Parts: sequence; structure tokens; C-alpha cells
Amino acid sequence: MNPSAIRELFERVRCGKLTPDDAVARLRHMPFEDLDFAKVDHHRALRAGFPEVVLAEGKTAKQVASIFARLAKHQTTVLATRASREHFAAVRRLVRKAEYRELARAIVLQRDRTNYGKGKIVVVSAGTGDIPVAEEALVTAEVMGNDVEHVYDVGVAGIHRLLAHRTVLFEARVVIVCAGMEGALPSVVGGMVRVPVVAVPTSIGYGSSFQGLAALLGMLNSCAPNVSVVNIDNGFGAGYVASLINRL
Amino acid sequence: MNPSAIRELFERVRCGKLTPDDAVARLRHMPFEDLDFAKVDHHRALRAGFPEVVLAEGKTAKQVASIFARLAKHQTTVLATRASREHFAAVRRLVRKAEYRELARAIVLQRDRTNYGKGKIVVVSAGTGDIPVAEEALVTAEVMGNDVEHVYDVGVAGIHRLLAHRTVLFEARVVIVCAGMEGALPSVVGGMVRVPVVAVPTSIGYGSSFQGLAALLGMLNSCAPNVSVVNIDNGFGAGYVASLINRL
Amino acid sequence: MNPSAIRELFERVRCGKLTPDDAVARLRHMPFEDLDFAKVDHHRALRAGFPEVVLAEGKTAKQVASIFARLAKHQTTVLATRASREHFAAVRRLVRKAEYRELARAIVLQRDRTNYGKGKIVVVSAGTGDIPVAEEALVTAEVMGNDVEHVYDVGVAGIHRLLAHRTVLFEARVVIVCAGMEGALPSVVGGMVRVPVVAVPTSIGYGSSFQGLAALLGMLNSCAPNVSVVNIDNGFGAGYVASLINRL
Amino acid sequence: MNPSAIRELFERVRCGKLTPDDAVARLRHMPFEDLDFAKVDHHRALRAGFPEVVLAEGKTAKQVASIFARLAKHQTTVLATRASREHFAAVRRLVRKAEYRELARAIVLQRDRTNYGKGKIVVVSAGTGDIPVAEEALVTAEVMGNDVEHVYDVGVAGIHRLLAHRTVLFEARVVIVCAGMEGALPSVVGGMVRVPVVAVPTSIGYGSSFQGLAALLGMLNSCAPNVSVVNIDNGFGAGYVASLINRL
Amino acid sequence: MNPSAIRELFERVRCGKLTPDDAVARLRHMPFEDLDFAKVDHHRALRAGFPEVVLAEGKTAKQVASIFARLAKHQTTVLATRASREHFAAVRRLVRKAEYRELARAIVLQRDRTNYGKGKIVVVSAGTGDIPVAEEALVTAEVMGNDVEHVYDVGVAGIHRLLAHRTVLFEARVVIVCAGMEGALPSVVGGMVRVPVVAVPTSIGYGSSFQGLAALLGMLNSCAPNVSVVNIDNGFGAGYVASLINRL
Amino acid sequence: MNPSAIRELFERVRCGKLTPDDAVARLRHMPFEDLDFAKVDHHRALRAGFPEVVLAEGKTAKQVASIFARLAKHQTTVLATRASREHFAAVRRLVRKAEYRELARAIVLQRDRTNYGKGKIVVVSAGTGDIPVAEEALVTAEVMGNDVEHVYDVGVAGIHRLLAHRTVLFEARVVIVCAGMEGALPSVVGGMVRVPVVAVPTSIGYGSSFQGLAALLGMLNSCAPNVSVVNIDNGFGAGYVASLINRL
Amino acid sequence: MNPSAIRELFERVRCGKLTPDDAVARLRHMPFEDLDFAKVDHHRALRAGFPEVVLAEGKTAKQVASIFARLAKHQTTVLATRASREHFAAVRRLVRKAEYRELARAIVLQRDRTNYGKGKIVVVSAGTGDIPVAEEALVTAEVMGNDVEHVYDVGVAGIHRLLAHRTVLFEARVVIVCAGMEGALPSVVGGMVRVPVVAVPTSIGYGSSFQGLAALLGMLNSCAPNVSVVNIDNGFGAGYVASLINRL
Amino acid sequence: MNPSAIRELFERVRCGKLTPDDAVARLRHMPFEDLDFAKVDHHRALRAGFPEVVLAEGKTAKQVASIFARLAKHQTTVLATRASREHFAAVRRLVRKAEYRELARAIVLQRDRTNYGKGKIVVVSAGTGDIPVAEEALVTAEVMGNDVEHVYDVGVAGIHRLLAHRTVLFEARVVIVCAGMEGALPSVVGGMVRVPVVAVPTSIGYGSSFQGLAALLGMLNSCAPNVSVVNIDNGFGAGYVASLINRL
Repeated sequence: MNPSAIRELFERVRCGKLTPDDAVARLRHMPFEDLDFAKVDHHRALRAGFPEVVLAEGKTAKQVASIFARLAKHQTTVLATRASREHFAAVRRLVRKAEYRELARAIVLQRDRTNYGKGKIVVVSAGTGDIPVAEEALVTAEVMGNDVEHVYDVGVAGIHRLLAHRTVLFEARVVIVCAGMEGALPSVVGGMVRVPVVAVPTSIGYGSSFQGLAALLGMLNSCAPNVSVVNIDNGFGAGYVASLINRL
Repeated sequence: MNPSAIRELFERVRCGKLTPDDAVARLRHMPFEDLDFAKVDHHRALRAGFPEVVLAEGKTAKQVASIFARLAKHQTTVLATRASREHFAAVRRLVRKAEYRELARAIVLQRDRTNYGKGKIVVVSAGTGDIPVAEEALVTAEVMGNDVEHVYDVGVAGIHRLLAHRTVLFEARVVIVCAGMEGALPSVVGGMVRVPVVAVPTSIGYGSSFQGLAALLGMLNSCAPNVSVVNIDNGFGAGYVASLINRL
Repeated sequence: MNPSAIRELFERVRCGKLTPDDAVARLRHMPFEDLDFAKVDHHRALRAGFPEVVLAEGKTAKQVASIFARLAKHQTTVLATRASREHFAAVRRLVRKAEYRELARAIVLQRDRTNYGKGKIVVVSAGTGDIPVAEEALVTAEVMGNDVEHVYDVGVAGIHRLLAHRTVLFEARVVIVCAGMEGALPSVVGGMVRVPVVAVPTSIGYGSSFQGLAALLGMLNSCAPNVSVVNIDNGFGAGYVASLINRL
Repeated sequence: MNPSAIRELFERVRCGKLTPDDAVARLRHMPFEDLDFAKVDHHRALRAGFPEVVLAEGKTAKQVASIFARLAKHQTTVLATRASREHFAAVRRLVRKAEYRELARAIVLQRDRTNYGKGKIVVVSAGTGDIPVAEEALVTAEVMGNDVEHVYDVGVAGIHRLLAHRTVLFEARVVIVCAGMEGALPSVVGGMVRVPVVAVPTSIGYGSSFQGLAALLGMLNSCAPNVSVVNIDNGFGAGYVASLINRL
Repeated sequence: MNPSAIRELFERVRCGKLTPDDAVARLRHMPFEDLDFAKVDHHRALRAGFPEVVLAEGKTAKQVASIFARLAKHQTTVLATRASREHFAAVRRLVRKAEYRELARAIVLQRDRTNYGKGKIVVVSAGTGDIPVAEEALVTAEVMGNDVEHVYDVGVAGIHRLLAHRTVLFEARVVIVCAGMEGALPSVVGGMVRVPVVAVPTSIGYGSSFQGLAALLGMLNSCAPNVSVVNIDNGFGAGYVASLINRL
Repeated sequence: MNPSAIRELFERVRCGKLTPDDAVARLRHMPFEDLDFAKVDHHRALRAGFPEVVLAEGKTAKQVASIFARLAKHQTTVLATRASREHFAAVRRLVRKAEYRELARAIVLQRDRTNYGKGKIVVVSAGTGDIPVAEEALVTAEVMGNDVEHVYDVGVAGIHRLLAHRTVLFEARVVIVCAGMEGALPSVVGGMVRVPVVAVPTSIGYGSSFQGLAALLGMLNSCAPNVSVVNIDNGFGAGYVASLINRL
Repeated sequence: MNPSAIRELFERVRCGKLTPDDAVARLRHMPFEDLDFAKVDHHRALRAGFPEVVLAEGKTAKQVASIFARLAKHQTTVLATRASREHFAAVRRLVRKAEYRELARAIVLQRDRTNYGKGKIVVVSAGTGDIPVAEEALVTAEVMGNDVEHVYDVGVAGIHRLLAHRTVLFEARVVIVCAGMEGALPSVVGGMVRVPVVAVPTSIGYGSSFQGLAALLGMLNSCAPNVSVVNIDNGFGAGYVASLINRL
Repeated sequence: MNPSAIRELFERVRCGKLTPDDAVARLRHMPFEDLDFAKVDHHRALRAGFPEVVLAEGKTAKQVASIFARLAKHQTTVLATRASREHFAAVRRLVRKAEYRELARAIVLQRDRTNYGKGKIVVVSAGTGDIPVAEEALVTAEVMGNDVEHVYDVGVAGIHRLLAHRTVLFEARVVIVCAGMEGALPSVVGGMVRVPVVAVPTSIGYGSSFQGLAALLGMLNSCAPNVSVVNIDNGFGAGYVASLINRL
């Protein structure tokens, strides 16, 4: 936290070794990280709990393990998403306390269990296929220090099932809704609650679902104005945004 | 209804004026309409009430009027869709009894008021912008001889409004659902009723609704299995299909 | 069928144990399924024959078997679609009477063989590749209690083959048409019959068929007004909608 | 706020005029709005400040004026978006206190000036063309009772301009970012702040911007995990979501 | 037809004014049009009847007239497509013998009436809206010296009308088929005839026809292997290709 | 070729066993194939050389072999496209004389070697990756009885290579051009020759080639009016169309 | 160019009014524009000739005139693109020396006529419709101080016309190629020259050109590796990039 | 380099064995490669360093090895892109001096190490996943004789990391920027430097990144006018274009 290079510059001006004009000229050519901005990153780490997340998918078990172990040295909490059992086995060998959340396909190291959120985050999912994405959102919110609840299997074609969970929804400070196919659930939930709804389209479906495009468009065109949307299958992003909101 | 050319052929064989072989040869070269198929069209007219519908959009008032008048000579019922007041004025001059249904943008001549449907067709629409399409479906079903009811303004983001109309929905033999934006309404309605739902995506919306594409994809990916879909803004098609179903 | 919780509430009001005002307050916080709506689901089960269908694709054999066995306890009919031989082997071990319909890739348990349909459902398919989807529609309609017939291999480029099956088509109360590539068959069939046509685009084709998109668009733009459409490869949905229509 | 019909039911049970069983039966057939849900809508009005917003675009001046006047009777705040000067002239005749916010193309009636938000909402926009959308977001947030600030003209290709506004960004409790063309601004802003960012793609651009699709996709794929997205040009939605967040 | 520059080169070599080596070097730097290729263009003019066609759409009446007049000096036949009555009025003033084909929206100057085609070209169109495109194809084929026939209004949903024209279709040496909406007609016609079919998708339709995309994809995926396709609304291209085929 | 059922009908009328009226009634219910149309298919077989082609891709070796063998009984020529070595091994066991064309991935049985084409078909391909599609076109044209020549590796970015083959191109009666990536080759070739060009986009490319979409669009928008297009990778279709043209 | 605030800081340290530590702390909170980055913008202005360009399209004549006049005070060169005659008339009133380049639809104020480019930029365009985009590129390159030449009307379907301009192409240091429809020209030109080619797809075309998408995809998939691409119709961008290259 | 056929022609004219007229006629029928154009290709080889590059992906190890070896005979530098270790093993056996650049997945034979570039090419990449594409660009630029530097991991959501590399960016004569997901980096870099930026979208991302489409559109719509774009994942193309620019 000590930008010594700049301090040194001032020191040399103070001693008369450098005129102010020369100092300005040198300042202009110093690498930027010596200035104010480096601190931004650091602050984020302190507050958010994990400055960097590992996307395991597409990496070898060895690569994931090595990155995970490196982060585990500096961060109290480490999260790897879209991780297989193989990824986990490799991580486990290096980081003993890492846990595997199978449904969420996430590897988690959570040393700090402080509750940073002010209320409850409720994660709603439509069908069985949407559960992995919903669980990724849930785990993300949990490791960021939130009280989280998951309401399963409440698709719009059985609206009474959703209505039956009214009470839980009404307790939420933020709601995350994961749905594939027609992606209609965020609109219905958005119409029921008065808090922000973060919608996650999933790639569940076939044919003209076009790998989640139908759900994505449905959510973007929601007639409920309290709905905002993240990328297809981006459970992590939804959990992250919801956590930031819940900390406010 | 008398395919006389063929009958004549048999007659000449009977009289010995033609050998069977020659008759077969001649049959092979007769124009097709003399055969059985011409009757298909005729039958459809008798049963369906209007064998041909006029799409007024893109035609001049004069053209519409002239087609409408010609059809009025042979059909008990004539329907022109997507018609403006100008179209109607021109039609009215030629066909006195024609009426204009403003909300539906339809010109109607309905001499036969028999009720051909066995139950009620309920037309549900989500927002104000969807009303013209819903009314086109409604008028189509009406002129095809059905008992029709329209439930307005029951979007999915205010699910209680829809639930309040449960009783009407439960009375329907077929339901038509018109919705733009995210197109989620057919899924919710489909989950509530046990009868066929004909879904009509509308082009209402902006941005990523892409002129009704979002609603169309939403409906095609409905998790309610009793939903089938027609083209964007195709109120006529929905009314037509629903009428055929209601006649069964 | 006995919403005892509510009845209990009234009983306590009657006995003076609760004031009407308190009762209203409690009613407001009761879970919704205790109210009227739970019955919706139940009714559907009674009438439709299977309240829930298992989509085997993407699930392990073990998962499918376990869900299938659970449903088999409460439903007279159970259907699993897009199931492999492996899925079936696992189901068979738990549910003896389950059968495998290879062409349709469906696992079926059908204890109730009542005919609920009022007429015949005819399933038409264009090419060899479309048969699995057509058979899925056919099996769905069968287990829902319908008299079904399948007309194979009648693509539009050999129109005489289709015309040769006129008689069968004219006997149908509902027609299901499955076609890939240009998806033109529903238009031709729709022009020949006077009953509702449920069109199923299939993903058969290559290049600019874009996994069924060409067929889907073709069917949605059909010039035959008695055609409505379900999702690409959605044989189940077509069979379901057709069954509902045939029960009317 | 008094569901009298139900209360009456309990009363009649209490008086012995109705048996509990009869009461249950009647309850089942009561229209739904008499039950708990009607209250949802009402509550929303109380808390949100405006239960309904008027989308003026596509409506005649007369229609907008009439809806606006009707809402003005029951709501303390009324908002009409995408309104022209003509729309405003008509509204003004009926609702004296209505004001026109030209940049935002919004008509506003704001009788309640309470500050409901807990912090500041900062609206950032990239280019001149994005201003109407940004102003719509700003006006929405304002009429919902928030302290709002607008940072103009800070596109990513002149990153120093954005950096110069660091202080304002760091003061925000929620940030709204509006950008067309490549839609990159939310990613950069999202990387600078630690609060939720609501991104609004605008239809500004030409050629392969495809009316905002490029910006929309860019924002959905943001590498900053605190970004969520609303529909193209949906300034209202962004202002609404941000307001809900700022009230938490 | 006399590439004099090259001849000159040889002449100078013959006279000894230039060594072969120098000649080779000079040849290498001669502008290309002096070589063989200029003749290509000329030949095409001679054989095809019109080396250049005027696309009137998007040009002013004055521009069209001036181009038309210029071409009329060197070509026996001149064709302007997508021309309005205004375009024609301006052309007429400069080129007396020009005629306007209203249905085809084409301006034609045809001084050479030789029949270059060996058989008949039949143009088939599906609906009323497709006629302008079909007529453009027809006029193009006519001015290129072919015997042409137009079969109107034979959409696939009334297959008997198409069958009734069997005889005409069987006489064709090439068939052009124009259709919008689902674009199914070329497949059916292709299955009936044994000659090449040139398919023209038209932009007729609405909603998910996406300005002719549905028809285009349908035609590209035709199950009839004798079908090839030109651009949406490209009646000119179809007439041109068909003419080249018919000259073979 | 003997429609005996109909002949029998006439015979019975002749003998007085049936009145003409009864005969007409019976005729109306006869299956269509007994009528004139069956002959269409037969004729096509006689003239085209193969009425049916086997698409091997997606079928098992056993299935392909069995279909191939069945066709080999009635057709002088049989063609299976997109066939692997495994497909061929299975076919070979049943049909001794079948040959495998490796480059074209085609299995061929060609008993009739008559030359039905009147001129030469030239197949041009742009890159190495396009060769399988080009060879499929070439083999198709060959088995349909044409004189064919293949010009390899003449992409537009090395225009001199194409120009070097001018002579061959000028000898063609029809040209087939196969190209992936930007699909520009048909335009250049189309501008050089005066005969019909059948363009085949291939799926060769990556990124924004979108599996051949870029090439397809390029070809459909060709500025050379003698170009028509078939589906992506549809070498068979191009060879078929070119053969029909070359027979005229 | 004098960051006085920072200089002042050093001065105060030098005088002992501030300790180095305090100075570092203050530096951290200074607004960013006082630092180094402001100079970036200034430098760009000095070197590039115009730091800001006015996109006239979508702005009123008055707005364009006012912005143009403001820029004219500080910049030696001002450029407004996509400007109409009305825009120019308004600009002319405020800036006497402004000129209108009609073909390019550009308003130009060029006080500095220094040639900054080291070689010639050649702009190639395919069809008449592409000229406005090509001229926009040309004017941009001109006002940025380059020697520019425009080769018109050299579409790929008449390759000899392009070959005839070989000499001009070989003289270019950078080539800009503008083409609509299939967008093939950059590939052919790219194959002929050894310098960078900047490709500009234009929206010229109809049907499946999809407003320039076909040309854009064609250019991105060019088989000539020296081609890079800018947005559809972005003549300005191409001229700008080419100018930067030509200054190197 | 000796077009002997033409020289021979001149020689025979000189000797009187051939009249100039006959020579012209013969010249017209000579194959084109004997003329001037063959030299184009040769020249390119001399200047560019490698006239042909091997795309290994989709080819067998044997094929790649054989092509590589053939090129190694005539070219001082050979490059194979998208090559696996298996490809390399096979190449190595035939070409001893070939090296494998693992990160870039490239096989390189570089005998000529002359520096042809005049300045430095800087390659910037956003995320870990973009490195293979960036390295492909880097290797391409290197083997074409440039001084290259790679700046890693400077995504837009951590803008300070990018700013920290200002000095390196300011030294570049050309910048290549590789980014997936939202593809925003080229805009930010483009705004910082005054030299041409070649942008490479990568297919890194998921969901609505649509395999690089989002990044591609983002880059095409860049608000920085010094950005031009190559195909998705086309590191080779970017390196090639940048090298050509750097040689100017």
C-alpha cells in the first residue's frame, strides 16, 4: 500500500535534488500502477471476498489446481465454477480445505463465514435442468456471505406451485430467477415481488430454444420492470450482482 | 357436384362407343380439375363458411372492394382482414351490408349466423397493444359461427388479474392467447386449463423483441404441452384453427 | 380432495375459538396449495392420463429409472421420451410392465387402455429421418387413449404419394404432420383436409436447414390457415395437443 | 385494504348462517381478486410511487392524455415515456401540473417529492445519441424519489474522460450505464466501481450495430461480474431497477 | 475487335525495331484491356441481348432516363427493372419506343424479336403478391427471346389447382417458380417435372417470414433435387438464368 | 405400366355390370396411385437414371447396405452420398459391383454408361477443403451420364490461377462452382462464362463463416446474373441440376 | 499543456510547506484530468488533423451548423459526414469556407493542405450504389492529407475491368475496397496487391443481402490474408485507418 | 522468371516464320499463366516471406507433414497454424529444423531472420483464453520479420492494468488486440494510441457470446476510428496485416 516511487520523487524535490518541473516530467512517464489506481483492485478484494474466480471449464485439472492454490494463498475465499469431479480431485490434493458442491459444479474454499448481506437472497428455478445454474448462483451468493434460500421446480405452467411459495418470495431482499425454455418465470416472479429480480436464462431446452436464446429474449422483454438480466447460464454473475445489492 | 366429363366417358363405354382401353387412355389426359379434387374446394366452402379471406393490407381500397364484392356473390360470409377505414368505405359502396369492426381492423359480411361451434372460444390478450390481433382472432371465430369471449389485459407480471378470470377460462373449449414482448402468457394459461391453447405472438415490443421474434420463440418453447403456435400477428389463423377445433 | 386446513379454520370460527378477523388474517398466510388451486393439478392427472412426462435425454439411466418408478406408483400411465435402450434397461428392472417403443425412443407404461379420443388421429411424416419424431407423436397419442394411424414417406416432392393416401387423411379428426428440410408438407396436407393440422418441424436436414429452423419458419408461414405449430422435434407436444383436440 | 367478502363469509359461519363445509365450497368459487392478491398491486402503488407507466409511443395524443388524466386521479406520481411535444400538449390540457422533460421525452406529474432512495444513482452515457435513453432512466429514478446525477459523453475510446469522473462514480450506490455501438462502457465502469451496474444498450449505431444488438450482446458478455442488463433503449426499466435497489 | 497495340508490337519486332526481349518486357506493362479480355464483354452483349440492365429502384427518374437512353444507342434491347410510372415517363421522353410493363414494373425497349430459346419457359407463382416478381422474370425471359407462359395463383394449400396445370408444366423446358410465405411451391413443382426449376423466394408474408427469409430457406432445403435458387425477389436473375438454360 | 384397376372398371361398365354413375362413385374412392400419377415416378426413373439416392450419413452401415441392395434390383444406377469406408464395406458384401469414390465419399453402382449430356460440365472448386463437395457434384454428374471435368484450387485471391483455366471454362455447357469462406468464386466465374453457373456454398471456414452461411449469402447476392444456388455442401443437388440442364 | 496543479504540489514540497507524505496523499485525490492523460487528446488533434468528426445524419441542420462552427474555432480541419444539402446550407451560413462534397455527402473545412501521407491511397468501388461510401472514404483520406485515387465500377463479375486497373492498384500504399451485395471484391484485390487492404461492406443490395450483412460476412471470411474490415457503410473509418497507415 | 513461350513467339515473328497477325491470334489462345500474371505470385513470395500458410486443423498429421515438407523446399519460411503436437511430430520427421510454438499451436520453419518491419508490433490480449489467438498473431508477425511484444491479461474491467502498459502501447507502430466476450478492448486501446489497431475477436465466452459473434459485432461497431477487424480467432490474419503495415 506504499507507493514508494512517488514518495521518493517528492523526497528528492524536498532535498533540492530535483526541480518541481523535472519532477512533473518524470511523473508523466512513470508506470501507472504506481499511482492511485492500483488501490482500486486491492479495495475490491478486501470488500468483495474474492477478487478473482476460476472458470474451470476448458482448463485441465492441473491448471485449475495450480491457479486455485495460488489464489488460496492471498484470498480468504476461492471459488472455481463449472468444475468437474476431476478438477476437484486435483485441487483437493493442493488445497486440503477445498470442498466440492456437486449440484453447483463448484469448488469452494471459504475461510471467512461472516454474513455481509443485509437480507435474504432467494434463488428460484423453473425445471430440473435449471438446477446447476441456480446452484451456481446460490453457492456464489453463499461464499460472498449471504443468507440464501432455493425454491425449486416452480415453472410458469404450474402457477399454483409458485404461488404456494409466496411467503418465501416476500421475505427476499433480492430474487434470482433461473429458467430455460420460454424464460417466462422472471416476469411472473417480478410481478409478485417489489424487490430487484436478477434473471438468468439457461440453455435448457431444444429446437427453437437455440441454446438459451429464447429464454434470454423472453427475459429482456419482460413486462415486469424490476427485472434485469445476465448472460445465458451465468449463475455466477447473478449470484455476484445479487450479493452486491444485498450488501447495500 | 357432377363430374360430367367422367360420367360421359363411362356412358360412351357403356354404349360401346369407346373400348375400355381407349377410355383409360383418355382418362389419363383429362385435366385434373375434372376429377375428384375440384370438389375439395367446394366442400370446404360449404363447411368452413368462407373459402377465401381478403388480406386488405398492401392492396388499394379499390382492389379490396372489387374482390370483396366478387366473393359476396358466392359466399354467405366474407371477411377482409387488416383493413383500414378507407378500405371499408370502398367496400361499403359495393356491398351495403358489410360492417367494419374497428378494433379488429376487419370488414365483415355475415349473412349466416348459425352457431357451428360446440362450445365457447375464449380469447386472452396481454397488453393494450395486443388487442388488434386478439380482436382479429375474435372476429374470425365469430364469423365462423362461434360463441366467443375476450379477456383483456391479463399480462403475466400481474398474475392475480389472470387468476381472477379463472372461471371464464375454465368454461372455454379452446383458448386463444395473444401476447407480445416475452410471450409468456400462453404458458401460464396453458398450465391452468385442460383444453387446447392456440398461441399468437404479436409484434408488440421494442428493442430485442425483434418485431415479435422473442414472443414467438417464447411460445414455441412453452413448457405447457397443450400450446401450439401460429405466425406473428396472425389473429386470423388462430381464430380459424380454434373454430375448426370447436366444430369437432 | 379435502382442503381440511381451511375447513378447520371455519370450524374454529363456528366454535367461537377464532374471530372472523383473525380468520381472515390467518387465511392470508396459509400456503397456497391448501386453497383451491391444488385441485387443478389433480384434475389434470385424472383427465389427461399422465400429469408428468419424463424427458430421458440428458439424464442418466439411473435417474430416469428412479423417476419413472416413482411416477408409476401414482399414475396409471407413464411416458418417458427420447429414451435410449440403456434408459429402458434400467427402468425395466424397477417397473416390470414398462415397454420400449424403439422407433419412438419412448418407454411406456400403459395400464389404462380406455379410448378417450372421439375420432382418429393421423400422423403424416415426410422422410425416413422424420420417423422418430412422428413415432413419438404417435406413441404419445396412443398412451393418451387415441386411435392413431401413421402415413409414412409422403414428401411434397412426390405429391402423388400423398394424394394416394387421401382416404386416410379424410378420415382423420386431427392430423399431425412431421417434416424437416423445407417443412412444406403441413401446407399441402392443410389444403387437403378440413380439420386442424398440428405441424412439427424436425431437425432433419443440413446446411441452411439450421437444425430445423427452415422447417419451423416454413410451417409458421403456411398459407393453409388450419395449421398451428409446435417446437422443432417436439413429437410429444404434437401428440398431446392432438389428443386434447380429439377428446373434445 | 379490507377483503370484506371473505370476512363476511366468516361472519356468517360465526352466526351459524353457514356451515363450515358450505363456506369452503363458496370460497372455492369466489373471484380471486377478493382474496389476498389484490393487495399486492395496491402495495406496489404505495411503495413504488407509480403502479403504472404510460408508453406514449404508438398512441395518439388523445389516448395518452386520457390515460394520463385517469392515472392522475389515483396516483401521486404519473409518468409517460417516449412522449412527443404533441402528446404533452394534450396531457397539459387535462392535467395542469404535468411537466415535459424534453431530453427524456417524458411527461411527468410529481406531487410527492419525498426522497425514498438511500444513496445516489449515477447515470453514465457514452455518446450524444444515447442521451435520450439516459435521460429517461434519470427522470424515472427522479420521480421514484432518488438523488440522481448524469455523467455525459464518456465513451470508452477516450478513457481519460471517464477516469476524470472517478469521484462521482465512487459516490454512487447504483450506476446506470447507457451505450450504443459496441456497448463496452458498462464493462469499464463495472471494473471501476464496487456497486451494482445496470446496463442499457441503446439502438445508436448503424450497419452491424443491428439496432442495438451489438451493444446488447456486448453488455450480456461483460467480463465485469457486477453488470446486469435491460432491453435495448429501456431507460425506464433501468431507472426502475436502480430505484428499487437504492431503496433497499 | 482489333487489338492493334499488340499487333503493332509484333510488327515492330518483325521490322527489327524491337528485339523479342524488349517486346516481352513491354507486353508485361501494357494495360490489360488491350489484351484478350475486352472481347469477353463484347461477346456477351452479342449473345445475351443485353449486356447491362438498369435497376431503377433508388435512382431518380432523370438518372434512369439518361442511363436508359445511353444504353439504347448501343444495345438492341434495354431493360430497366423495379421502375415506377415516373421512371417510365422520363424514359419515354428520351426513348420513344420504350414500353412500360406495369405488372412487372419494367421498362422495355425490344428491337430484336428473334426467338433465341429452344423451348418454353413456364413461370409459376403462388399468390397475388408474388405476381410482380413473377412478371419481372417473365419480361426478362421475353426480352431475351423466349416463349414464356405464366401460371398464376397455384399455392401449395390448394394442390388441385396446381395439378390442373400439369399439362402446361409438362411442356416446359425450364420452370421458374416464385413464392413467398413458406416457399414450398418449388418443391412440389420440382417433384412433378423433370426439367430444371429456378426458384425465386419473394418477400411476401409477414411476421416470421422475415422479408422472404422463410421462403428462401425453404427453397434452399427443397427435397426436390432439380431446384436451384436465386436471391429474394430476384425475378430478373431467375429470368436470366432460365433464358441461358433455354438457349442451350 | 398397366393401370388394371381402372381398366377393370371400364370393362365392368361395358358388360353392364356397373352403371356409369356407380363407376364414377367408385373411381372417386380408388387409391390415387392407380390413376395417372404413378407414371410420373416411373418416367423419372427411366430418364434420370436414378429415381432415388441414398444419404448414408446418419444411417448404420447395415441400413445403407440394405437400401442400396434393394435399389440395385430395380435401378441400373445407384448412388449413396456421404458414405464412409464402413458403409462401403457393408454395401460391397451385398452388391459386388459397387465402387467407392473416396474423395467424393460416394458409393456408386453404374451399369449404364450411356452419355446423356450434350456438352461438358465443369466443376470448379476454390480450396482443398471444398474438394469433397466438388467431387460429390462430379460423381453425381458422371453417374447421370455426363462428360465432366474438375478444375481445382482456383480461389479468388489468386485470380491468375482461375484465368489460366479460361479455356476449360469456355468449353463448359454448365459450370458448377464450389466455395466456402467468402463464397466469391461463382461471381467471378459467372462473369467470365456465358452459360448457367450452379453455385454450391460449402461449410469450409471458421468463425464468422457460420458453417457456410457467409458463402451462401455471398452466392445469393452475386452480381453475376447467371448464378443460381443450392444448399450448403449440397454437391449432389448441384450435380443433379447441372445434369438436367446438360440433357436439354 | 501545463499541469499546474501538480507542479504547484512539487513547489510546495520544495518550499517545505508540505511533507512528501502529505503530497502523496493529496496526489491520490486529485481529479484525473490534471494528470498526464489530458495530453493524449491534444496530441491526437495535432497529429491527426481533426480530433472530432460530426455525424450529420440524425441531427438537425441547426445542430450540425452549431457543432461545426464550434469545432472550426479550434481545428484547422473539420469534417461532417452523411450530411444533406440542408445541413450544408446551415453550416455555410456560419462557416464561409466550408465546402460540400456532394457525392460523399460530406461537409469539409480544410485549412491545412499539407500532405501527411507517404504514398497513395487507392479507393476501389464495385457498383454505382457503392460510390457514396467510397467517396466518404476518399474525402476523409484527403482532408487527413493524403494523395488519393478512386477506381470506379470494377465489380468481380467483370474481372477484366479490374485487371485493366492493375497499374493504379500496384502504385497504392494502402487500398480501400468498398462493395455491397456479395462483398467479394476485397478478396480479389487482396490477392493482386501486396499492401494492406481495408474493406468496407456497403448496404447496397436487397433480399438476402440483409442491409450489408452478406457483404460484411464475405469480407470477414476473405481468403486473402491482407484484408481487414470496418463496419457496414463506414467509409469514414476506412479513410481514417488508411490515413494512419499511410503516415507510418 | 523467363516467359519463354512468349519470347519464342516474338522470335518467330522476328525470323519471319510467323506474321504479326498470326502471332496475335496465337497469343490469344495461350494459357494465361505464361503471361504476365504468374509473376505476381512469385513477387509475393519474395517480399512476404511465405507465399502459402498451412492450416493444420482438419488435416491428418501425414497430410500436414507432406505439405510442410514440399513448401520447405521452395520457401525460406514455412508456417503451419492450428497444429497439434501430433502434427508437429510428423512434420519434425521430415523437416528437422521445424520448431513447435506450443502456446500459438504453430509449427515454424524460419531460415530467414531478417527484420523487415520498421517498428514494433504490440499484441494485446484480454483474458487467458485469448492467448492462443494472440500467440498465433505474434508468431505470424515474428516469422514475417518483425519485432513483437505481447501484453497479457489487460481486460477492460480492470482498466488500470491496461493503463499500466501505456508506455509499451505508445511504442507500437501497429497494435493487434485480441479479445473475446464483449470485445471491448480494441475500442479502449484504439482511444489510447494514434496508430492502426487490428482487432481480432475470439470465440472465448459462452451463452450469448455465440462463439465470438458478440465480440465481432462489438469490434465492428467500435467508436475508435483507428480500428479494423479480422475474422473470429483469425490470429494469423491479424499478424499478416500488421506485418504488411509495419513494412510500409
